[in-house]
Amino acid sequence: MKLYSYFRSTAAYRVRIVLNLKQINYTIVSVHLVRNGGEQHSVEYLNINPQGLVPSLDIAAPNFDVVGPESKPQIITQSGAIIEYLEEAFPQPALLPINLTQRAYVRTLTQIIACDMHPLNNLRVLHYIEESFDCDDTEKMTWYHHWLTSGFAAIEVHLISKGSSHYCYDDQLTIADAYLIPQVYNALRFKLDMTPYPAVNRIYQHCIQLPAFSDAAPELQPDVDK
Amino acid sequence: MKLYSYFRSTAAYRVRIVLNLKQINYTIVSVHLVRNGGEQHSVEYLNINPQGLVPSLDIAAPNFDVVGPESKPQIITQSGAIIEYLEEAFPQPALLPINLTQRAYVRTLTQIIACDMHPLNNLRVLHYIEESFDCDDTEKMTWYHHWLTSGFAAIEVHLISKGSSHYCYDDQLTIADAYLIPQVYNALRFKLDMTPYPAVNRIYQHCIQLPAFSDAAPELQPDVDK
Repeated sequence: MKLYSYFRSTAAYRVRIVLNLKQINYTIVSVHLVRNGGEQHSVEYLNINPQGLVPSLDIAAPNFDVVGPESKPQIITQSGAIIEYLEEAFPQPALLPINLTQRAYVRTLTQIIACDMHPLNNLRVLHYIEESFDCDDTEKMTWYHHWLTSGFAAIEVHLISKGSSHYCYDDQLTIADAYLIPQVYNALRFKLDMTPYPAVNRIYQHCIQLPAFSDAAPELQPDVDK
Repeated sequence: MKLYSYFRSTAAYRVRIVLNLKQINYTIVSVHLVRNGGEQHSVEYLNINPQGLVPSLDIAAPNFDVVGPESKPQIITQSGAIIEYLEEAFPQPALLPINLTQRAYVRTLTQIIACDMHPLNNLRVLHYIEESFDCDDTEKMTWYHHWLTSGFAAIEVHLISKGSSHYCYDDQLTIADAYLIPQVYNALRFKLDMTPYPAVNRIYQHCIQLPAFSDAAPELQPDVDK
């Protein structure tokens, strides 16, 4: 498989973690979101991903269902769609609980991050508010912290009410952890005070030590800014 | 089941459509996002949904797995988690294709809407930019249209490249349609020019005539503003 990725993208980071957990071989194709005016805006990349966002996953690798004379790139975009695909195509290790309401709980946590935290704080949105609303750095950070604070607060309530330990769900590593760790990484980079969220911190400290997570970290990516 | 809903919320609208398509009986509990300073901020509702957002679905209804002396509310929050739960718990009619890469395609469309369009344009975000960035109505509409335009443009490319007809995916009604129709409804309400998206329009015009969709429309909800 080929993952179109940017080292700092939390959405790409999620997918790297899941690929590692599933022990799937993949190569990184760098799409630098800042250099050259943003490589995601190139015609070549827009042919792969019409949104011009990372990640995109090309699953048409050898030994896969479209291999052969007709083999051609088969692209999945949107990290949420990619991760659900990986869970269905590579069921082991399972990254969702078996019980349906517990699966829903895990997905709730992923959606809080993917819908209500990350989209408000990615590069394109920060650019927009800077340029169109003439925000200075302080206003940008207030905006950033506002959405992260409300998201983490809700996640903390969920984690406490379910009695989480080292993982978001019980003693099982799930896709919720693959969403949470990149978001915490991003929050620390933007100097958000994480002390109000001890359950989140406990999970973060545990997971970043696991190889599937540490190997996916931005600093270890081939396209990291030197 | 009980759906905590607001008639205009596109996220709640999606869930209403899926409940209707699955022919699941449910009652609406109104959470008015504007009245009384926003009923979603009440202590009672925050106990149900720590994010203070709609929708929330209480699945602990009679004939369900937690019924009995220990029966208590069993809440699922986040429309994406609710819809995946409904698809797993009530497999018929299937609202995802069987083929794994086609399932991924359908989920990609849902995530474009749920992650990159709706979260930037819901009430809480429009309030924020109005109050903190001192945006006037024109700037607010420019912001709104900006994210919807880029999202619909990407969806249109996907639909054309896959050769869609009356539905987002082939001739099968899927969860992608349940996400798309409320987003178009919302766009029309905010007077977005939809003529650049003929494939989106074709699907919209077809689906809004189906009972599962028309019954879920904001105007027909018990909590509609008179």
